[in-house]
Amino acid sequence: MESISQRKKDHIQICLTQNVQSAGNTTGLEAYRFIPEALPEIDFESIHTETRFLHKPLKVPFIVSSMTGGTTEALQINRTLASAAEARGWGFGIGSVRAALENPEVRSSFIVRDVAPTVPIFTNLGAVQLNYGYGVEQCRAALELLQADGIVLHLNSMQEIFQPEGDTNFSGLLEKIRVLCTQLEAPVGIKEVGFGIHGELAAKLYEAGVAFVDVAGAGGTSWIEVEKHRAKDPQLQLAADTFAEWGLPTADCIVQARACSPNGFLIASGGIHNGLHAAKTLALGADLCGFGRRLLEPAIEGEAALDKLMARLEFELKAAMFGIGCKSLAELKGTSKLVRTAPPPARA
Amino acid sequence: MESISQRKKDHIQICLTQNVQSAGNTTGLEAYRFIPEALPEIDFESIHTETRFLHKPLKVPFIVSSMTGGTTEALQINRTLASAAEARGWGFGIGSVRAALENPEVRSSFIVRDVAPTVPIFTNLGAVQLNYGYGVEQCRAALELLQADGIVLHLNSMQEIFQPEGDTNFSGLLEKIRVLCTQLEAPVGIKEVGFGIHGELAAKLYEAGVAFVDVAGAGGTSWIEVEKHRAKDPQLQLAADTFAEWGLPTADCIVQARACSPNGFLIASGGIHNGLHAAKTLALGADLCGFGRRLLEPAIEGEAALDKLMARLEFELKAAMFGIGCKSLAELKGTSKLVRTAPPPARA
Amino acid sequence: MESISQRKKDHIQICLTQNVQSAGNTTGLEAYRFIPEALPEIDFESIHTETRFLHKPLKVPFIVSSMTGGTTEALQINRTLASAAEARGWGFGIGSVRAALENPEVRSSFIVRDVAPTVPIFTNLGAVQLNYGYGVEQCRAALELLQADGIVLHLNSMQEIFQPEGDTNFSGLLEKIRVLCTQLEAPVGIKEVGFGIHGELAAKLYEAGVAFVDVAGAGGTSWIEVEKHRAKDPQLQLAADTFAEWGLPTADCIVQARACSPNGFLIASGGIHNGLHAAKTLALGADLCGFGRRLLEPAIEGEAALDKLMARLEFELKAAMFGIGCKSLAELKGTSKLVRTAPPPARA
Amino acid sequence: MESISQRKKDHIQICLTQNVQSAGNTTGLEAYRFIPEALPEIDFESIHTETRFLHKPLKVPFIVSSMTGGTTEALQINRTLASAAEARGWGFGIGSVRAALENPEVRSSFIVRDVAPTVPIFTNLGAVQLNYGYGVEQCRAALELLQADGIVLHLNSMQEIFQPEGDTNFSGLLEKIRVLCTQLEAPVGIKEVGFGIHGELAAKLYEAGVAFVDVAGAGGTSWIEVEKHRAKDPQLQLAADTFAEWGLPTADCIVQARACSPNGFLIASGGIHNGLHAAKTLALGADLCGFGRRLLEPAIEGEAALDKLMARLEFELKAAMFGIGCKSLAELKGTSKLVRTAPPPARA
Ligand SMILES: Cc1cc2nc3c(=O)[nH]c(=O)nc-3n(C[C@H](O)[C@H](O)[C@H](O)COP(=O)(O)O)c2cc1C
Ligand SMILES: Cc1cc2nc3c(=O)[nH]c(=O)nc-3n(C[C@H](O)[C@H](O)[C@H](O)COP(=O)(O)O)c2cc1C
Ligand SMILES: Cc1cc2nc3c(=O)[nH]c(=O)nc-3n(C[C@H](O)[C@H](O)[C@H](O)COP(=O)(O)O)c2cc1C
Ligand SMILES: Cc1cc2nc3c(=O)[nH]c(=O)nc-3n(C[C@H](O)[C@H](O)[C@H](O)COP(=O)(O)O)c2cc1C
Repeated sequence: MESISQRKKDHIQICLTQNVQSAGNTTGLEAYRFIPEALPEIDFESIHTETRFLHKPLKVPFIVSSMTGGTTEALQINRTLASAAEARGWGFGIGSVRAALENPEVRSSFIVRDVAPTVPIFTNLGAVQLNYGYGVEQCRAALELLQADGIVLHLNSMQEIFQPEGDTNFSGLLEKIRVLCTQLEAPVGIKEVGFGIHGELAAKLYEAGVAFVDVAGAGGTSWIEVEKHRAKDPQLQLAADTFAEWGLPTADCIVQARACSPNGFLIASGGIHNGLHAAKTLALGADLCGFGRRLLEPAIEGEAALDKLMARLEFELKAAMFGIGCKSLAELKGTSKLVRTAPPPARA
Repeated sequence: MESISQRKKDHIQICLTQNVQSAGNTTGLEAYRFIPEALPEIDFESIHTETRFLHKPLKVPFIVSSMTGGTTEALQINRTLASAAEARGWGFGIGSVRAALENPEVRSSFIVRDVAPTVPIFTNLGAVQLNYGYGVEQCRAALELLQADGIVLHLNSMQEIFQPEGDTNFSGLLEKIRVLCTQLEAPVGIKEVGFGIHGELAAKLYEAGVAFVDVAGAGGTSWIEVEKHRAKDPQLQLAADTFAEWGLPTADCIVQARACSPNGFLIASGGIHNGLHAAKTLALGADLCGFGRRLLEPAIEGEAALDKLMARLEFELKAAMFGIGCKSLAELKGTSKLVRTAPPPARA
Repeated sequence: MESISQRKKDHIQICLTQNVQSAGNTTGLEAYRFIPEALPEIDFESIHTETRFLHKPLKVPFIVSSMTGGTTEALQINRTLASAAEARGWGFGIGSVRAALENPEVRSSFIVRDVAPTVPIFTNLGAVQLNYGYGVEQCRAALELLQADGIVLHLNSMQEIFQPEGDTNFSGLLEKIRVLCTQLEAPVGIKEVGFGIHGELAAKLYEAGVAFVDVAGAGGTSWIEVEKHRAKDPQLQLAADTFAEWGLPTADCIVQARACSPNGFLIASGGIHNGLHAAKTLALGADLCGFGRRLLEPAIEGEAALDKLMARLEFELKAAMFGIGCKSLAELKGTSKLVRTAPPPARA
Repeated sequence: MESISQRKKDHIQICLTQNVQSAGNTTGLEAYRFIPEALPEIDFESIHTETRFLHKPLKVPFIVSSMTGGTTEALQINRTLASAAEARGWGFGIGSVRAALENPEVRSSFIVRDVAPTVPIFTNLGAVQLNYGYGVEQCRAALELLQADGIVLHLNSMQEIFQPEGDTNFSGLLEKIRVLCTQLEAPVGIKEVGFGIHGELAAKLYEAGVAFVDVAGAGGTSWIEVEKHRAKDPQLQLAADTFAEWGLPTADCIVQARACSPNGFLIASGGIHNGLHAAKTLALGADLCGFGRRLLEPAIEGEAALDKLMARLEFELKAAMFGIGCKSLAELKGTSKLVRTAPPPARA
């Protein structure tokens, strides 16, 4: 199992030092603008952003996206992220725990519940593993390991074919997800890893029993870019360049998912880098908003840096709400004050 | 009260030395083009631009937007602006007089009526102050101080939350504005400060009794940019960058306001930098056009510089009118010769 | 009259040495593309481009736009242009002959008929002069001077207000043009000088009796740019920059004029720099196509240079016709093989 | 006939060393994006791409576009291309064999069947030669020379007029093609050389009896650019620049041809540089996809380089199919998962 750990280390290293931002795609959020409400008729101090996730309260509609685990460095990152999540009332997602399931030695590197006793925590596995020997038992083990409130399975088909050692049999997974949802005691969510989930698929997933869908759309971290930096084969690197445009922009995912499934619990993520992005996804209909790579560097820098960033993200969300006169998330969701508009022409 | 004076000094200094132009927005006027009338059938000399504001005549439909006051430097600027306004027949707006109401010592720094005896002058206060102890009496004092013909209250919600010492309770203001309009003897106008007033809000304001609305739309001076330069906190600076796109473009404000309120007295401002911009806003339906920061530097340079600029702005307005064959503002307003059009593709 | 001659000299000098290309506008022709006919089913050698203008035959549907006269240098340019026109079967327009009418000494500088005995030649005056003492007699003199086949009056309202000595009374001109058309024995045409004639005005002009309209649209030589380089006053230069976007693109002029007046004799000009541009304007419905500044430099360089350029322009027209399978101008005019299309996105 | 051989040598040399990519056009494929299927429900290993062409099987829907022949260097290139085509199961097209028909000495430079015994090979002649003495006999000779499975005639009207020695009588060709199709025992195809075939022409060609149409659209190699580099005459070079925008983008050709002829055998080519491009053309309705200049450099570099590139192109096609959950070409063709979309705005 050293290979998984090494891969995870590589991922973090690459995400911190290389440009892994989607090169040929954007979140699509730049095409949306809020119409300001010059007379908001509310007190900034009265804005509240409380909500719930996995049967637990959140102070803000934000989660830490599933990122890492399985190494000493990862443990440090996860503990910083989890305790910050606890302090600020965010949800917390861990990276794939497969390494721990296959190698008990690394189990200790996933211990975070002690620093995040009250916020919702969700564990993570690749959905494709259901075709490679995994089932309800492994999911239970993944939940227990984290003392998690739920599990999210990630769909990462393109990543798998762009990595040499990829697991590329994705057949029959929807049915297995459906069965898992009936068997497992905890809520099961489904996420992508940065290429997005379209509206009809989201609907199929809800129908199959998943508790939430996290679109993890295009425009942020691109896993084809990440794998490109790991690839030794120049042809694979060139193929990665060819697919720089791949993915459904996060904004499109949200709009489609909401149109197809008005009531499904929906998480927006993929390229969310500030609180205005977040506010736009919530206005488009998302219930929560996830931050991935944006949190990585501050998490390594330390708790103070992370807390400052998180506080700013929260301020920006509230600033946007104030700017359009919304007191609560209920008012923000589906507001008519977000409009699609061509970006202004470039300045000379 | 030293803090207000210092802030005002900072504002002028920053506006003169930093790039405070909206970084992520434009006025939207660049998307409109006049269709030239090759045979205008008029004599350039016969074009007239006279109009009225606050029951007084103007030679051109232009006003100096509310900018400054409360310091020695501000007094100099305001006296230059006011006497130029008198000379050329423009309306004149002063910056917020709150400093003078709260600190009688600085009252003398607002004296301009002696150099602008005949043109309309309007005084200025923040609308949010109605939630912080201000009412009809303070407005009367503000009018008397200037011997003003009217008062304009500015809406600056986003500026308030981006400045550390901001007053951020904007609840219940519409009702207070309504009451003020019935109590005050002089006309009350409402303006933004560069993020714009949308059409439905303009309609509500007219309905509440305001005498005029000045949209002060996005695309010119951005107060988030200005406050960014005052901010010590790096997180606040980053948040300011996030909101670089905030605001409703001036052109959109005018179009919306005119659609919702065909007869409300409407002032276009925000990013109006030349007479062609002005002509476009009047063609879109505005009654007057306000110039803010564009006048600041020449006003400091001196009367001659300011007069030259103002003469040019007037010439440009008349050139546009000549170019489409309009003899009067009545013909210009709502002309069918302004069309929305994509900007031409960039030249290689 | 030295002033007119000096002005004319300046114009040529500026046009040759400064960038006087419209800075904020294009011809609009770049938005149109021909759909190639891969199997043209014609012989390139069989393509013919003959047509008629002012009751005389042309070998190609091209004219030299009215440019200059009144100086020794201008005489040289005009004789080179006229003899090239004769050699290649183009129509020839002279610049304004007002200088010669007001100062008999410069009459000799307009003598070109000897080198262009058979092709159509048209003389030129400013239409606004009809408000400054000119009438049918001056037009007759202008015709005689050139032994011209027709006269074209130019509309240049914007140029007049951007030049210090401008004649800016354009009132009542349509009626005077109507009268002139009934009085004068020769055909009267109307042209702009680079800001374009819109469709309804073209219709009014035809209705008033003009024999042809030359739109002289925006996207090529900008007379505001030219006058900017003559202006001593910095404010006038800044105003010129403000109006960089002024003008109706040549393509729009043609489309509008053709829509309003299916049968009016229509000349496309303004920014026509190659034979593909020309082919597009003819496809949009023009009868002839005029080249102005593009010919100036080769005309000064000499007959050989000019002949090469003209031959290339003709080749390009025929290449376009071949490329879409058109054997004659009748087939080209109004072809369905020209489509409006967004330009391709910029290459990285 | 030395001239043909020299021209062919020049072409290869120019294509290898100069920028002959269409300067003013794109394939249009950049405006189309696949909507990813996050849950593809297939096994990557089970994707199959087999198809047929000219009554022979292909492992992938790819062909080598007609390029060269008639010189020692060309023989080397063609043998490398043909044996790679055999190894990977691609179809193979040779460049025009006219040189060999007119000069028996160069016949040996077209021998490739020995290295490509099983894959479909097609020979090539200019369609315009049917107006210059060629007929069914020459086509038979062209087939025999190659032991080819079919012949493709190229339409290259614009290339012919941009080369000094061009054959430019394209009249009456459709009828001659129709007759040829009835006379010749082997299938006859028609292709362009990089300016595209529009939908109605494709329909006429199918109706005339051609077995396949290869659109060879704009956005890749431009033959006007190639001829520009051969031209000695500066005016011809300038004319070439004028026509930089000429051509119908490959994507438009496919869409139009498919709309007009739902069942005609259709080959997409022109600017296809990777397997994602290829996947898009197949999704738009093409049956096969042709690669021209993209293969030239690796073919000269040698078999290993060429094989690597071809393997990558195939991987990219399969990656795209996997990414949208298509197991076969039948599923890919006309999929609803390709959508037209504006490209994302440029990143700062
Ligand atoms: C270093 C790193 C590791 C990741 N590991 C996982 C993982 O194990 N499981 C998973 O579901 N997603 C993983 N992701 C994907 C993220 O959850 C997220 O969907 C993706 O990065 C897009 O969001 P972003 O643009 O905010 O980074 C990882 C992302 C990063 C940056
Ligand atoms: C230095 C400066 C001070 C300002 N002070 C005030 C003020 O006190 N009250 C107010 O209503 N607006 C104030 N404004 C905003 C302007 O009135 C105007 O709405 C805004 O600058 C947008 O217009 P512009 O783009 O033409 O500058 C100020 C603007 C500037 C540049
Ligand atoms: C040097 C120069 C002198 C010109 N003089 C005249 C003139 O006397 N009368 C006139 O009608 N147009 C005159 N024009 C305008 C041209 O006829 C033409 O309408 C304009 O230049 C736009 O065409 P272009 O873009 O091809 O240059 C002149 C243009 C140039 C470049
Ligand atoms: C060096 C070279 C030689 C070519 N020779 C021929 C030819 O003889 N016959 C032909 O039909 N097309 C010929 N072509 C055109 C190609 O078949 C193809 O249609 C064109 O290059 C566009 O495709 P591309 O963008 O993939 O290069 C040639 C192309 C190249 C690059």
